[in-house]
Amino acid sequence: MNKRMEMLSNLSAGSDSKMILIVMDGLGGLPDNRGMTELEAAHSPNLDALAGRSELGFLRMVDVGVTPGSGPGHLSLFGYDPYEYLIGRGILEACGVGAKVSRGDVCSRGNFCTCNGDIITDRRAGRIPTEQSAKVVEKLAANIKEIEDVKITLYPGMEHRFVVIFSGDALDEHVWDADPQKEGAPMLWASAVAPEGERMAQLANKFIRRVQEVLKDDMPANSCLLRGFSSAPDIPHLGELYGIKAAAIASYPMYRGLASLVGMEVEDAGRTLEELFDSVSKFWNKHDYFYIHVKYTDSRGEDGKFDEKVKVIEQVDSLLPKITSLAPDVLVIAGDHSTPAIMKGHSWHDVPFMISSDKCRFGLHKTFGENECRFGTIGHIDGYKLMGLMLAHAGRLNKYGA
Amino acid sequence: MNKRMEMLSNLSAGSDSKMILIVMDGLGGLPDNRGMTELEAAHSPNLDALAGRSELGFLRMVDVGVTPGSGPGHLSLFGYDPYEYLIGRGILEACGVGAKVSRGDVCSRGNFCTCNGDIITDRRAGRIPTEQSAKVVEKLAANIKEIEDVKITLYPGMEHRFVVIFSGDALDEHVWDADPQKEGAPMLWASAVAPEGERMAQLANKFIRRVQEVLKDDMPANSCLLRGFSSAPDIPHLGELYGIKAAAIASYPMYRGLASLVGMEVEDAGRTLEELFDSVSKFWNKHDYFYIHVKYTDSRGEDGKFDEKVKVIEQVDSLLPKITSLAPDVLVIAGDHSTPAIMKGHSWHDVPFMISSDKCRFGLHKTFGENECRFGTIGHIDGYKLMGLMLAHAGRLNKYGA
Repeated sequence: MNKRMEMLSNLSAGSDSKMILIVMDGLGGLPDNRGMTELEAAHSPNLDALAGRSELGFLRMVDVGVTPGSGPGHLSLFGYDPYEYLIGRGILEACGVGAKVSRGDVCSRGNFCTCNGDIITDRRAGRIPTEQSAKVVEKLAANIKEIEDVKITLYPGMEHRFVVIFSGDALDEHVWDADPQKEGAPMLWASAVAPEGERMAQLANKFIRRVQEVLKDDMPANSCLLRGFSSAPDIPHLGELYGIKAAAIASYPMYRGLASLVGMEVEDAGRTLEELFDSVSKFWNKHDYFYIHVKYTDSRGEDGKFDEKVKVIEQVDSLLPKITSLAPDVLVIAGDHSTPAIMKGHSWHDVPFMISSDKCRFGLHKTFGENECRFGTIGHIDGYKLMGLMLAHAGRLNKYGA
Repeated sequence: MNKRMEMLSNLSAGSDSKMILIVMDGLGGLPDNRGMTELEAAHSPNLDALAGRSELGFLRMVDVGVTPGSGPGHLSLFGYDPYEYLIGRGILEACGVGAKVSRGDVCSRGNFCTCNGDIITDRRAGRIPTEQSAKVVEKLAANIKEIEDVKITLYPGMEHRFVVIFSGDALDEHVWDADPQKEGAPMLWASAVAPEGERMAQLANKFIRRVQEVLKDDMPANSCLLRGFSSAPDIPHLGELYGIKAAAIASYPMYRGLASLVGMEVEDAGRTLEELFDSVSKFWNKHDYFYIHVKYTDSRGEDGKFDEKVKVIEQVDSLLPKITSLAPDVLVIAGDHSTPAIMKGHSWHDVPFMISSDKCRFGLHKTFGENECRFGTIGHIDGYKLMGLMLAHAGRLNKYGA
């Protein structure tokens, strides 16, 4: 834990105040040829009214010019410096399939593949369908429960993909991929990249040998590759840090997983966007801090559908009264990164955000958008500093020094 | 290399995009009694039009309140944290006289001086004229080619000044000046400030003894002083870091030298400002990144000539179409520091800048100036983060984390 986080933790104070963070994934945008960003183009009377009671600014999620992945973007929103706390590919994939990961576990992404002797002939086993792949995972799970005293847990993914979790003592993530990266090449076995990864590399290779035994007659999926070995990050939980009870209201497994890594309780988010917003009131008395995740702003941005992204923002706007009517002490509207529709992908542009409480310099804004955020009182702040700002507005941070 | 730079380097990706950085030296200014800064007072329709297609902000070259020298200002623009990468006086002087400096060389500034026995009677040898001094350097160069197995290279400077470069194995810059700093005092010989500087200090003193032998009958320049021992910084080159081919289009030796220290290829800049701007198209296919240096904004500022500085900005404005017509993917207009004419010197004020690409939040500005930059979408960023922003806009940085 760095000194700043330790200091914030030491300053944190009890309160019965309630905080809500609404994350519209990939919220930030760029103007299309009509000259407005997605957020500016949206008809959003509720967000605009909230802007009148908020302070505005920009979040710099990782660094100037650096495009955040979903992991770093979210860790930053939750108050963790994304240069200090990294989420490995394996663990992110495990989150994505809804796996339960404990501290000390090592996760890896798997591909079913086809091999002929030692030669990998197809790294994706003909992209076998998801249903077929799930059956292969079931067969493996029935046959491979542990290796030495390490417990093996398997989760199916899309098509030829799966996730394997190794649970046991003294496992270490310093292992390089068991994957030759090209077809027609001999198998490349897992190898330690530091002495402490030696045992895990051997376990991974024993696991692959067992897979080959179990699947030896199952063409085309008769072996597997393992990539992105990573352990659950040694990350202090929000409750330990700030004494808050935090909840995640998110439909997508990856975000539920990310939230649980920082100690949030993952609540039922329902199936629709409306149910997602309704969920908050259901669990209102149980928690202090609510993280609400809206996925589709990002999805529509990734698809390059400007007008569709606008519609998702308008939908969120129409559901906002479900949140404001709960009268949270602190309400933040933000994104985890920008996903401009014209770029069809994540981008480095700072993310517009606003924070509303009864301790705001209010009355300065009539709208919420990238253009308006230029004139906000907060300016540009590192994304991971948002948590401290929320705690302050919530009356949950004592004075620093006398 | 710090972790941030290592991370940026790891994220960097190939592309055939082109970047241009136009540096108007000392661009930032202060209003005179008419209320506008030099940049604001300039009639600059091309810069103003570019502002409409750009994002604006301020560069903090070193730190709040810290006035940058040319070395730190430029290193920052090139992406190097100026607190981490220092350019010694000797090396800067060597750059200034157009010396070729290789990694491992140690440079020192020299003064010809007059001594009487061991007493320094004139630290500047009567400020002998440049031509006379050049002849002394020639004579020394003919007589002192090496000391032990260390090669000696000499470059004449202005008046009594010259530069000496020591090239050999295991040379070290931890040497204190051979200069008593006052007249009528006995010679103060070079001394090591750390054990590893011991050999270099002895070499420096042997060099001075040799100079005294060669010049023993050449009053008033019958000896020399050496100051600012420094080696070429161990600075990773832009090509190694980001896989870019960078070129410098600069007329002044110091800036050509600084650019070559970070691995830029120094191209012919012609003689006039017009030729300087024409040069870019000549080398357009050869490089990815072009650094264009305009000296006179700073010179006029240093002279306190407000209106003359305005004219230089207007001249650059009129030449800008030579650059925009090349349709670079990324175009940045910036300075390396502020040189307000009313201060007749460098200052600490953040430097106005703009970045233009097709991934900008555009359409927000009608003019480029200090006042307008307050309303930019970028805010104030550390100067050394500009490089990452340029690489991002150029599509040359991958996403951070999944």
